[in-house]
Amino acid sequence: METISESRCYGGVQGVYKHASDATGTDMTFGLFLPEEAEHAPVPVLWFLAGLTCTHENAMVKAGAQVWAAEHGIALAFPDTSPRGEGVANDDAYDMGQGAGFYVNATQKPWAPHFNMFDYVTSELPKIITNNFAVDEERQSITGHSMGGHGALTLAMNVPQYRSVSAFSPICNPTAGDWGRPQFTNYLGSDETTWERHDATLMMRNVGLDIPLLVDTGANDQYADYLMTENLWAAVAERRKAATLRLQPGYDHSYFFVSSFLEDHVAFHAEALYA
Amino acid sequence: METISESRCYGGVQGVYKHASDATGTDMTFGLFLPEEAEHAPVPVLWFLAGLTCTHENAMVKAGAQVWAAEHGIALAFPDTSPRGEGVANDDAYDMGQGAGFYVNATQKPWAPHFNMFDYVTSELPKIITNNFAVDEERQSITGHSMGGHGALTLAMNVPQYRSVSAFSPICNPTAGDWGRPQFTNYLGSDETTWERHDATLMMRNVGLDIPLLVDTGANDQYADYLMTENLWAAVAERRKAATLRLQPGYDHSYFFVSSFLEDHVAFHAEALYA
Repeated sequence: METISESRCYGGVQGVYKHASDATGTDMTFGLFLPEEAEHAPVPVLWFLAGLTCTHENAMVKAGAQVWAAEHGIALAFPDTSPRGEGVANDDAYDMGQGAGFYVNATQKPWAPHFNMFDYVTSELPKIITNNFAVDEERQSITGHSMGGHGALTLAMNVPQYRSVSAFSPICNPTAGDWGRPQFTNYLGSDETTWERHDATLMMRNVGLDIPLLVDTGANDQYADYLMTENLWAAVAERRKAATLRLQPGYDHSYFFVSSFLEDHVAFHAEALYA
Repeated sequence: METISESRCYGGVQGVYKHASDATGTDMTFGLFLPEEAEHAPVPVLWFLAGLTCTHENAMVKAGAQVWAAEHGIALAFPDTSPRGEGVANDDAYDMGQGAGFYVNATQKPWAPHFNMFDYVTSELPKIITNNFAVDEERQSITGHSMGGHGALTLAMNVPQYRSVSAFSPICNPTAGDWGRPQFTNYLGSDETTWERHDATLMMRNVGLDIPLLVDTGANDQYADYLMTENLWAAVAERRKAATLRLQPGYDHSYFFVSSFLEDHVAFHAEALYA
């Protein structure tokens, strides 16, 4: 593993690292914030999955998460949103290919064999981080924004390792919309039964969720037609499990919205991670 | 004036606006955060001057300043660092020309007549902001990072309108270093007496400062040789006026450093702005 940079931040360290990934068959870059407490003992970690067009860097520099993570003694992991580089398939559209992995394992060429962001984020990168840093494998939670909110919700309903899940402006029902159908067709093929486990609304209906859930979406989100928030909310209500779903009046889809409510989300996860 | 974007942020609004500037003879873009309190009455404003290579956007999205400005009910103004566009002179170096205005009024072609960032930031943009938004002309303070820290310090010692001044990792003695001498030669010509008012160390020695001063610099700043922090500190000590100058162990020159101490800086300015 190569250290790209390490900067002191709120008493801890904001690092950027690069490593060869088995899951994607490429080099992958990620950001990791370690609070000061990590100097003494392993700390819990909150995963932040970023949205379309983002790299590991966007949330790391724009969300303002470190201040709250430092306050609560929580690490923050910022993975990339897709494999990248020469030899990796791409598409001219901003919402397909590099920067738009949708947190699935692609089965269709040319996206297979590199686009395995599901395995990368749920399995390979957690091992790398917990093996190389003072991060506690037993205490992981997950959040994300937009496509990353979709990722946080669907990963949390597919694998058991998270203690809590939250999302900002998540894509809620990708099998029904333009942020989902074209991508799943490309990555997973036309058999829509393979799409279901990557759709938060369908998973909430079919499988449900037994960890704490918090979702914030801006009432003025300019991509509301792509997100289909209402479908997830209906599915959550049908499950009758504890959940907090909020529409924030006046807020849009930007990181200005995300940053405005990150304090709440980190505190929400801290409660689960330190329980 | 054209509204580029407005996003709800911490209960207020983070806007980006463009206008035709008399000072630079170009269109100029700036960011302005207005806290919720601005809906009811004019609020004080903290200017944030950015560093080399930055636009209006860098500090606006990376410094995490809005959370503290919202807490204290203070507006944040984020000007660009130079004029831009076709017909504006430029240079291949990252530290000269567009993105590197050094907050002076250039007297030498081809930088004259567009590179008038001193007039733009101290005179034209304050009028535009106080005339068009609920911002109180009588309550202004200023901060900045790196070249912008140089700007904050030198503007505050040249014009009387600020109530307090702070800086992160400022260039402290530009007439003596490589972040200053080449640029002042280009912008102002070879008569070094015209440079003096744009050098914080020389101004501190020759003119002094009668408003509260706070400076933070990372002890691990990778550009220490360019900043010459020690020269400013010596000059401040010689003046024997109240000042807080801090070296922060472990921190470097990045926005991760800036964001780690912004809460202190906003609180420092709030005390002066609400006195």
